[in-house]
Order: sequence, then C-alpha cells, then structure tokens
Amino acid sequence: MKSVFIQYEPLNAEATSQQYYTRSRALFERAVKVIPGGIYGHASPALSLAGRSPYYAVAGEGCRYRDVDGREYIDFMCGYGPLILGCRHPEVEAAAAAQNQRGDCFNHPTERSIELAERLVETVDGADWAVFGKNGGDMTSWAIRVAREHTRRKKILRVRGAYHGIDAWCSPGNGGLITEDRMHVHDFCWNDPDMLANLFKLHSEQVAALVLTPFHHPNFGDCALPEPEFVAAVNRLCKANGVVLIMDDVRAGFRLDLRGSHCQFGFVPDIICFSKALANGYALSAACGANRLKLAAGRVFLTGSFWNSAVAMAAALATLEILSREAVPQRLRLLGERLRRGMVTLGQAHDLPIIASGPPAIPFFRFAHEHNFMDWQRYCAAAMAEGVFFHPHHNWFLCAAHDENTIDEALAAANRAMVRFKAESCLATVPAI
Amino acid sequence: MKSVFIQYEPLNAEATSQQYYTRSRALFERAVKVIPGGIYGHASPALSLAGRSPYYAVAGEGCRYRDVDGREYIDFMCGYGPLILGCRHPEVEAAAAAQNQRGDCFNHPTERSIELAERLVETVDGADWAVFGKNGGDMTSWAIRVAREHTRRKKILRVRGAYHGIDAWCSPGNGGLITEDRMHVHDFCWNDPDMLANLFKLHSEQVAALVLTPFHHPNFGDCALPEPEFVAAVNRLCKANGVVLIMDDVRAGFRLDLRGSHCQFGFVPDIICFSKALANGYALSAACGANRLKLAAGRVFLTGSFWNSAVAMAAALATLEILSREAVPQRLRLLGERLRRGMVTLGQAHDLPIIASGPPAIPFFRFAHEHNFMDWQRYCAAAMAEGVFFHPHHNWFLCAAHDENTIDEALAAANRAMVRFKAESCLATVPAI
Repeated sequence: MKSVFIQYEPLNAEATSQQYYTRSRALFERAVKVIPGGIYGHASPALSLAGRSPYYAVAGEGCRYRDVDGREYIDFMCGYGPLILGCRHPEVEAAAAAQNQRGDCFNHPTERSIELAERLVETVDGADWAVFGKNGGDMTSWAIRVAREHTRRKKILRVRGAYHGIDAWCSPGNGGLITEDRMHVHDFCWNDPDMLANLFKLHSEQVAALVLTPFHHPNFGDCALPEPEFVAAVNRLCKANGVVLIMDDVRAGFRLDLRGSHCQFGFVPDIICFSKALANGYALSAACGANRLKLAAGRVFLTGSFWNSAVAMAAALATLEILSREAVPQRLRLLGERLRRGMVTLGQAHDLPIIASGPPAIPFFRFAHEHNFMDWQRYCAAAMAEGVFFHPHHNWFLCAAHDENTIDEALAAANRAMVRFKAESCLATVPAI
Repeated sequence: MKSVFIQYEPLNAEATSQQYYTRSRALFERAVKVIPGGIYGHASPALSLAGRSPYYAVAGEGCRYRDVDGREYIDFMCGYGPLILGCRHPEVEAAAAAQNQRGDCFNHPTERSIELAERLVETVDGADWAVFGKNGGDMTSWAIRVAREHTRRKKILRVRGAYHGIDAWCSPGNGGLITEDRMHVHDFCWNDPDMLANLFKLHSEQVAALVLTPFHHPNFGDCALPEPEFVAAVNRLCKANGVVLIMDDVRAGFRLDLRGSHCQFGFVPDIICFSKALANGYALSAACGANRLKLAAGRVFLTGSFWNSAVAMAAALATLEILSREAVPQRLRLLGERLRRGMVTLGQAHDLPIIASGPPAIPFFRFAHEHNFMDWQRYCAAAMAEGVFFHPHHNWFLCAAHDENTIDEALAAANRAMVRFKAESCLATVPAI
C-alpha cells in the first residue's frame, strides 16, 4: 500500500462526504445488533461525526491506513498512540514473528520478560524494577494499590479531567459506579499548586498516592504543560508527606523522552506506568518503580492469563532498541513542530486562527473562535475527506513513519480541507430544501 | 519439535532433580533484581517447588513445550488454559498471520470485531451481544458495573474462594486493599443454597449481581461441580429478585461446552465472561449478554488501547471454527476421562490413592492421604522430572493436541514419577549427612 490516494470527489454539500463511508455505515448497522453501542472505545469520531468519518479500518502500513470504503489516510492518531514507529514496522514485526515461531503463551514466563525488565531499568529514569500487564489501566490501578500497601493509607489524589483507565476509581464514565468506588479519591486542578497543598492539608497523613500524567491532555480541551511551580509543589508535597508519586505515562510514554516523560518536566515519580507506544501496537503495559517500593510491589497480587506472553515483549525490546538508535523522540519533536507551524499558518491564511497546545509530538489543535468544537469537528471531517485522519477532539500522535514530506503532504490536504470546510459551511447555512 | 524426550537421569536424591533446572534458577536470580518477586502470576510452582520445577519456557508445539534447560514436557496446563488447540495451531496461526499482514492495532475497529460478536451470539447460549477486552478480569469487573447500572443497586454476591481476577473487589491477595473495596461484596459457600438464600434475605432489594464460575475450582482444593439444588437456587433467587447472574466462564469456557459451560449445569446467566481459550493463546476476553442488559452495557464505559486489535479476533474466529468443526469439548471429555481413569488406577497400584475432581477436561488431582499437598507437590516435581508438566495445586487443562497416545505416554511417565517419588520419599527421611 503506497501513498496513492483515492481520488476525492469535487467539493459540494455534506451529503457527499457521507457517501464516502457507505460500507462503514453498513457495517455499523450490523455491529449495533450484536455490540452494545456498535463501537465502544475509540468510538468518538463515529459518534460525533456520524456518517462523516470512517468507522472501520482494513489495513495499514507506516503512517497510512485504509478504511473499509477503500479510502486512504495519512494517520495522525497512530492507533491512539501505540504505533510510534508506524504500522507494521519491519524490524518490530520480524522480532515478534521470530518469538511467535517458538510460541507466545506458556505455563511460565520466557527470558524476554527479564530482558525487557532489564531494558526498562536501564532506560527509564528512576526505574529499579518493572512488571507487565496488558492495559495501561492494569498498571495504574495496580500502582495505587502498591501505594496503599506501601503507605498503609487510603487517599488517592488525582487531577480533575485526567484519564487513567476504565476502572471504578478513575473511569470517565458514570455508568455502574457506586459512591464507595471513589470515597478516597480526591481531585485537584492541573497547574494549581495551592489547591493541591490544601488537599494535602485536608487529608494530612492519609494520602497514599498522587497520580498524574506528565502533561494534561483532556478530551475536548487544550493540553497544558506543567508549570515549574506546579512540578515543584508536586515533588515537594509528595516527598514531605511520604506520598507515592505515580506518573501515568501511558499516553505520552516514549514519544517525548525515552527516560520517561517526567524527565521533560522535572517530576520525580516513585512509579511510572507505560503502555501504548511500548511495543508498537502489541498489547503490553508496564509499571516501573523505585527500589523503596519493591517490597510493597511484591505484595500486591498481579497476574493475567496473557501477562507473560512473549511476543509483545519481543516487540517491545525491538521497539525500544529502534527508538533509542534512531533518536525517535527528538525526530517526533521536529516533525511535530513542522506540523504545528503549518497548521497555525494555515489558520491565519484562511482567517480561521488555530490554537495549538501540547508537546509537538502529541499535539492538540482547535479553532480559536469556539470552545464547543462544532466547527472544528466539521473541519476534521473535511480533512478526512481530503485523506488525512485528524481526530476532532482528542490529541493527535506523530510517529517515526512520518517525515517532512508526509507532513507537507498532510498540510496540503489540510489546506484543501479548509477550502472544503468553508464551502460546506456556507452551504450548511442554506436550508436543505 | 517432535516428541523426542530429553533422556532423564537415573533415579536418585532430590539434589538431582534440582540439577535439571540450572538455567531456570540462574535466570530467576537475574529476574529478582529487576522484577518484584522475580515471577509474578503463574509463579506458584516456582515458589512451592523452588528449584524442582521449570521456571522459564522457551518453545512449544502442540501439547509439548521445552524449558530453558532444554527439557521437554507433555503439557497439562496449556498456558493455564488458553492453548485449547495446543501451542501454535497451524490454522489459528495462519488466520492471525493473515490479519497481521494487514495490521492489528488501528484507529478504528475492524470487521473482525463484528464477525466475532456475531459468531459468539450464534454460539453462546443466551448471548444477544458481545464486547471484548484483553483480560478475563476486564470483563468480570465491567460486568458487575453493568449489573449495578442495570439494577441501580450496590451489592455483589460471590462464592468464597472463587477467582474472578485481580481487581480490588475480588483479588485473592490482600496487598493494597482497603475496606471500601469490598464494602458491598458478600461471600457465600459453593453448593450452599441456604447460605445464599440467607444472603438474599439479609440484603433484600440491594443485590445487583451474583457472580460465580460454572464449577468451583479453588487452588489447593478439590473442584466441585454444582449440585442441582444449588443451580436451581441460584437461578430462582436471581430471577425472583431481579438480580443479574454473571457467569465467570473465563477459566472453563469452550472446554466443556461451546454454548458456554453454564449449559452443562443448567445455570441461566444474564452475562457470561470468557477469555482464556477464546483465541488459543492470543490475548482476548469477551463478555456476552442478554438483550435486557444491552442498554446498561452501553452505558458502562469500556475501552482499552488494544481492545480493537484485530489479530486476536481473527485468531478467535479460527479457534471457534475449529472447536465446533472438530467437536473439541466432546474429545477433551473423553481424553480427560482416560487420564482420570489412568491416574486413579496408578494411585491404587502404588498404594497411594489419588482423588480426582472437576470435569475431565479440566481435572484436579491430589493424594487421598493428605490435605496439605506436601506429598502431592513432590510427586508433581517427580512427574516434571519424568517429562510431564503436572501442576502441583491448580487444576490442569487438556487440549485438542492431546490424543490417546500422549495420554498413555503421560501415564507411563506418571508411573515412573510414582516410583521416583517413593524412592525420593525414602531418601528424604534419611538425614542428609
């Protein structure tokens, strides 16, 4: 699958872009019969851009993928993060296939688990040990139990609006939750050291853990990097109160800094959780921690049917090797800066200013003139119609399969999408009949 | 890798069997430096038979695998269940590889997710829909939230000593738990309909869900099939009280009955959770449910970074096809009965009676003369030394790669192990000097 775009139809009303997704929509109609909601998880564009977004993927290669209607996209989501080297990276696939020839799931771990733990301990700042799971949430939920075990305290402090998984203590949904699930979970606002200090005062000597992401990346909202005084307060308050600082680096991990994203900002965590990009798309998560937590870590029960599976670990070993050898985080920053400059310039040229936030490798964009994302979602639909997958309300991800040419190609498509969006916007104000 | 056993050394003291595992033990010493406890999850034989059990696997094929010391075993654990067709089943691997050629992890689900949901709805008794995760526990924990959402009640009833995953509401460990985690989780005893009825009375109109496995399979204890009056009480009390009956078929699923193990015993569940054997070793779990739960299911947030990954789903489609075409559950029952007869006969012949429990395809064995498993663990170590992997305190699993010849071959090894065990037992009573 090379970069040969399907020819897009000429500009006209929204009805046309819906025609692109005939097979996606037909499959969705089949899906809703046998899957509650049809698509759960990563469903957002299908929901917020119903009929104007691809719903189902068929195949991918590098930074491009094809949907069930045969349309091809330059990918700026990378599977919501995992594909840090792009889809089907030959070296990762070869490592995975070599392990799979011997087997994946056994009665025992394989040597891969030791090699990977050793590699993480070498790579990640502050890591003396590692454990592995399958979901990011396997690790964040386990980490709070390790903190409770270590401190013999109950309270968990977390940032309002941050995502740490689907478990009851942190799920962004309300369905099926009961009061007791979060009786000892307390929120504070990102970059608000005073609010945090007050929480520490209020729950003095009861706080087991403070959980946070290295930067704040809410849905439907700008990303926010941590301010230096916030970082200092987090480090100081945790240390002074014997509180376990858990860094949830599941989303950002390895895209900003191979040592862990905390090194970019100055956090000094006790436990660091990784998942998405660790094995370039193979299901794997890891928690790394400091020696002072090792005893407690050994006491909190941890297992899963596939947690020793060797193929994902072999893929992770290859991924970490390539990330290091090719200095991928540095490359992604430069590519991300190119994309950001291009998007901001584009907005100015079309008199529709665009706000960029977040680290360049994990950027977030929106129109400056609105906060409800209505126009921005329609713009992203136009971008999809032009052959780039721009997520309409979630941060994007760059990958090592992007290069300057694909960024420029994407920016050209983004420009066409802007024209398309403006044309459609005019039509949208005209009554349908 | 054919069935060529490594030649085992002649009988002598325990010291000899420790020599088999030189490399396992060396790797373990490396592991404990970077992994809390060295091995977590599925660690039991390494802990309870320290130095007398393989710790690390290298390769597998069918019902045989090789450890890091080059020793080969006939496998009676099948990766703790997943390998229902044996390790590296050609047809499953071909289906997985074909999907992997196109890609695994995308921004969207693939058609595989719909095909698999449709297949489960066709196959599983009482299933109108399906959702997918990675761990068995992803599904059991989600299911109790669906029950709470559906009923707007808090209480969960579960069987004492049953395993449902590592989440705080059910983990068998104590580390890091707080009182609130289980404030609304109440235990009753397996096959005790009166105790169950009393719990219903005590928590009248507060019970959201009753969670149970199709048969009781504790560690370090005999398995127990459900008695008809227990099944009747479970069904009747759930129905009369509007309580969601959740069948945790993670361990047994597809080995006893493709329609779900509940069909073997007469349970009428509202939600059925599967994982282990679903994709013959690929990481996947599923919950199937009745239409009356579909709305609530759609309201309980469910997602994971790799939950749409297509390769495991392609593997599951192939696995379910083969299980059905080859009537695997029926075959496993016959093979299990052969193994059970052989083991019981063996015990009688050696004047060391063996108690068999559980369904033949998922059998549990122990010596009749003890309840602490001290002798049985040493016997299983002797069996490992003779080239069969017999787990010393967990139920075993049969797979479709076993046949009558391998069962007989295993029984021959089990017989040699009995001789070895008795010889070693005598030596063990002699002081070391």
